[in-house]
Amino acid sequence: MFFSRQVERAVREHRMFTHGDKILAALSGGKDSLALFRELAHQGYDVTGLHVDLGIKDFSVKARMIVEKFCQDLGAGLIVISLAESGLAIPRVKAAVKRPICSVCGKIKRYWFNKTALDKGYTVLATGHNLDDEAGRLLANALRWDTAYLSDQGPTLPAEAGFAAKVKPLYRLSEFETASYCFLRGVEYHMDACPYAKGAGFTFRKQLMQSLEQKSPGSKIGFYEGFLHKARPAFLALEQKNHEKLLPCLECGYPTSAGTCGVCRLKRTLAGQAKFNEYS
Amino acid sequence: MFFSRQVERAVREHRMFTHGDKILAALSGGKDSLALFRELAHQGYDVTGLHVDLGIKDFSVKARMIVEKFCQDLGAGLIVISLAESGLAIPRVKAAVKRPICSVCGKIKRYWFNKTALDKGYTVLATGHNLDDEAGRLLANALRWDTAYLSDQGPTLPAEAGFAAKVKPLYRLSEFETASYCFLRGVEYHMDACPYAKGAGFTFRKQLMQSLEQKSPGSKIGFYEGFLHKARPAFLALEQKNHEKLLPCLECGYPTSAGTCGVCRLKRTLAGQAKFNEYS
Repeated sequence: MFFSRQVERAVREHRMFTHGDKILAALSGGKDSLALFRELAHQGYDVTGLHVDLGIKDFSVKARMIVEKFCQDLGAGLIVISLAESGLAIPRVKAAVKRPICSVCGKIKRYWFNKTALDKGYTVLATGHNLDDEAGRLLANALRWDTAYLSDQGPTLPAEAGFAAKVKPLYRLSEFETASYCFLRGVEYHMDACPYAKGAGFTFRKQLMQSLEQKSPGSKIGFYEGFLHKARPAFLALEQKNHEKLLPCLECGYPTSAGTCGVCRLKRTLAGQAKFNEYS
Repeated sequence: MFFSRQVERAVREHRMFTHGDKILAALSGGKDSLALFRELAHQGYDVTGLHVDLGIKDFSVKARMIVEKFCQDLGAGLIVISLAESGLAIPRVKAAVKRPICSVCGKIKRYWFNKTALDKGYTVLATGHNLDDEAGRLLANALRWDTAYLSDQGPTLPAEAGFAAKVKPLYRLSEFETASYCFLRGVEYHMDACPYAKGAGFTFRKQLMQSLEQKSPGSKIGFYEGFLHKARPAFLALEQKNHEKLLPCLECGYPTSAGTCGVCRLKRTLAGQAKFNEYS
């Protein structure tokens, strides 16, 4: 089947993992992450789910229920991290920070993905990013010529001090293809859009890529693969010169260039505000 | 005035030329080339026009008339090269080659621009490429990650063996701005689209850039300037390794990597076909 072959090809060409690896797969409850998990399980990989409960009321309750039922039906292991428990429920974070919430939420999720993989001894972390995600993000990075991001972007990131190895086995498959996979395999997924993501810029960039794809089919994968083979080496060479040295966060050990990492600083900010509210 | 200041800034920041230079400006008869010429003349530069008559029936007759009248009204010098005279009228070329005619026509025009500038002792060749042309072409090059073109693209190309220095003083101004300039200054220009350019891919890429610009004003110039400052150095470093050595064409002296240059090969092909038609 086309879907399985594209995953096999991505895994093989980028040496993402083998059947000896302990894979932790991030599960949001959306079509991409569930399709990824089901496919890896069916290909016989040792894969465990990780769900980060964002604490966004009904939206997160529903997401968690879908993920729990999915893993139960499949007889698969699942780890759930509740952001509310560590005081970082997204609505609370959104009220406290001025930056766009999508980028802060992404940062918090990546923090827990990485921490869980390292703490629990998984050898690789897999996420459900698809071709539309990747090509849209590449377009955004190229439109800004953000050479640091451009030097980093790809379907794999090797493990290094404080960071788990990360892979994106669906990077060759479009949103439409992961949705079709779920439909054909009877996978029930979370269809609601996050209530905070409305009008996010990346949707617009995805639409641009989509109109290119309609005009010349193959544009998206050509743009992304062409980047990996031809342009990324140039950005890697450029960035090796200005590579920032990362050290463990003074509070949690997560690699950071700032003494205390972003998530610990966020926790401190929120704790300070809570104290302020208590006394006022 | 905004238009003049943008031209002054482009000329100054990229050291395009001084009032001591002998500038040859390519004049197609369209809004961009006429706006460029008029503005340079008004800023007191020593500028002469060069029109390449493509031999595309009514379209070219009209273009040439517009350019001749424009230069006469301005009291400016004009050189006209007629492609029909050297056997390369575009309709004839189009009938003989299989490649898209726009790229072949561009190649022939650049050949004559360069040859005329060198033969007649001009110190720099100026073309009317605007921001939409440049950003659209950059997007096309980035979508293909054509590292050779990416390492070369910019508002200036220095003179080197066999090549005149080339500059694009309008690279900071949009199509809309050059059209407005012509309207406000009473410059009559050729509005007809080339009959062969219909459905050309670059129009679509320009539209994409335009929708980005509408979504976030400043996108086009940010994309182009960001490229020049941040990304082009990476591509330059990459391409220095695989820089092809150019030698003078065996027939006309134009730099080429192929022994005989593309234009001389084209002439030979057309001459061969004419002979064939004569005998058949």
